[in-house]
Amino acid sequence: MAVNVVKENIDDAIMMKLDLKKLSSGSSKTFCIADLGCAAGPNAILNMQDIMDTIKQKHQLQCGPDSKMLHFQVFFNDKLSNDFNTLFSYLPLERQYFAAAVPGSFHTQLFPESSVHFMYCSYALHWLSTIPEELLDKNSPAWNKGRIHYSYAADEVINTYASGFAKDVENFLDARAKELVVGGMMVIIMPGIPDGMPYSQLTVAVMYDFMASIFMDMANEGLMSEEQVDSFNLPIYAASPSEMSALLEKNGQFSIERMELTNPATWLDGPVDIPVWVMHVRAAMEGMFAKHFGSQIVDEMFSRLSKKLLEHSDQVQSGYWERTQLFLILTRK
Amino acid sequence: MAVNVVKENIDDAIMMKLDLKKLSSGSSKTFCIADLGCAAGPNAILNMQDIMDTIKQKHQLQCGPDSKMLHFQVFFNDKLSNDFNTLFSYLPLERQYFAAAVPGSFHTQLFPESSVHFMYCSYALHWLSTIPEELLDKNSPAWNKGRIHYSYAADEVINTYASGFAKDVENFLDARAKELVVGGMMVIIMPGIPDGMPYSQLTVAVMYDFMASIFMDMANEGLMSEEQVDSFNLPIYAASPSEMSALLEKNGQFSIERMELTNPATWLDGPVDIPVWVMHVRAAMEGMFAKHFGSQIVDEMFSRLSKKLLEHSDQVQSGYWERTQLFLILTRK
Repeated sequence: MAVNVVKENIDDAIMMKLDLKKLSSGSSKTFCIADLGCAAGPNAILNMQDIMDTIKQKHQLQCGPDSKMLHFQVFFNDKLSNDFNTLFSYLPLERQYFAAAVPGSFHTQLFPESSVHFMYCSYALHWLSTIPEELLDKNSPAWNKGRIHYSYAADEVINTYASGFAKDVENFLDARAKELVVGGMMVIIMPGIPDGMPYSQLTVAVMYDFMASIFMDMANEGLMSEEQVDSFNLPIYAASPSEMSALLEKNGQFSIERMELTNPATWLDGPVDIPVWVMHVRAAMEGMFAKHFGSQIVDEMFSRLSKKLLEHSDQVQSGYWERTQLFLILTRK
Repeated sequence: MAVNVVKENIDDAIMMKLDLKKLSSGSSKTFCIADLGCAAGPNAILNMQDIMDTIKQKHQLQCGPDSKMLHFQVFFNDKLSNDFNTLFSYLPLERQYFAAAVPGSFHTQLFPESSVHFMYCSYALHWLSTIPEELLDKNSPAWNKGRIHYSYAADEVINTYASGFAKDVENFLDARAKELVVGGMMVIIMPGIPDGMPYSQLTVAVMYDFMASIFMDMANEGLMSEEQVDSFNLPIYAASPSEMSALLEKNGQFSIERMELTNPATWLDGPVDIPVWVMHVRAAMEGMFAKHFGSQIVDEMFSRLSKKLLEHSDQVQSGYWERTQLFLILTRK
């Protein structure tokens, strides 16, 4: 259901808020779309196809069935380390658009000025570009000893994460404001949290807390060092609507067309299916854990994590997750 | 020396024939460059950098030192099977241009209409998109039995190769004419042959002939089947200036600014260094041979080839190769 709600929201925004007469009145006959943080799977390609289909519909409605056909160029962006070869292998051979890949961090400008008409950024903006140094500094009040995230952590740690996220979003919005044409649209989907709710109330906080205590157990058993645990911090942040509003207001170059918290995923309807959840989390985090702790610990860690979560099922099921997906539609002023 | 001659020729053409006032007068402030058939190595990136440097110089000279800086977007194109991940790994982090990759065959349109200002296609257009069926048909006069190329072959085989190449170039020019802005420039570098010279006079023809006879020997020894040899045809064509002129005239959308035959490579100055030559050829063809004949034959084939070429050194050294690189500069009418 969650994915369909997102698709419906995007379709509504395109139908109600995207002025294709204005956007296609320039000298360029090409409508440019960018997927920022596209990853290597087939979803990016399917999502872009959905967006193009809706834009075509709107174009016919707004400009008439006899209007000149819109041509699309789609840019798939992700970090240099993304597997673009695999992504390309999912491109349909008979596609009706020009496809290109753009490697690089979306915290910098990736496209020429005023060259993109529609941007889509799904589950990417919550990854911090770097871990703030204070979290690793023994002499800092933000030293994140014995934890791997800001959930259940001291205020200094929470504030350090929040500052890092704010700086990233500032860079992101500055770059997008340059690239997006006036009237162009941007969709952002990312983990969110209701205003005023502490992160530790979220179901996912329970998991991060268990992960930290498992790593500490493993350090005590000599499977890793305590320093390895202290120096690891998950570069993940969940923003509240008021936080994002403040960052957007500070930037000043976008209008907020829609901002809401939604249910993050279909498999989170009803009680949490712990094995499915762990599988999703492992897919997202395995590489990061292997890089920091060594690949030999990954199986053991996730096996202990599943066991611990099942043992503490009540704590998991009583956590909050219903409205933990932040959905944003912006237009360039 | 050969590479420098090519660079000098491109620099001259940019300085003399590229009208940057006209090209940068449109609404777009971005100068788009495409490398067609870029492969996965660092050369593509170095070549694009050289071209951008010269265009910047010309822009300063033509538009004055106080003119608005040109911004560049560079598109690296090659077939879907190209290793774009490796290519991206060579991109300088501090680059002053927007980089993108475009997967797909350059015999089709790859970019929106009138969206590219400069195109570069080096050692790519001579690869045939497909092997014409007649070459594989036992009942056709163009059946290429016992050979792997049109050198030393019957006229029907030569003509079939030439038709396949002509069709590819027609598709290539049609697509480029759509993509390139009026006044935009295209550089093509590819294997060539003087007008009227039969392919069998070229040094490289000796190599292809030896390859075919080695494959036939290996078939007789049971290392492969005769059918495997008969069904293999190197998809490589070398065009003469008059052939390319005729194809360009037929297309009618480009002006020929420069067309000449040059020495193909530095390592071909003086007598052929057979081991170096075989190394280059192996790098280009190993994959194709392995795919058709199986990877287990590759070592044996190239070892026999080196031996045979060294034994017949006189025949190699008396072949023609001096002016076997076709260098073309076109502008879009």
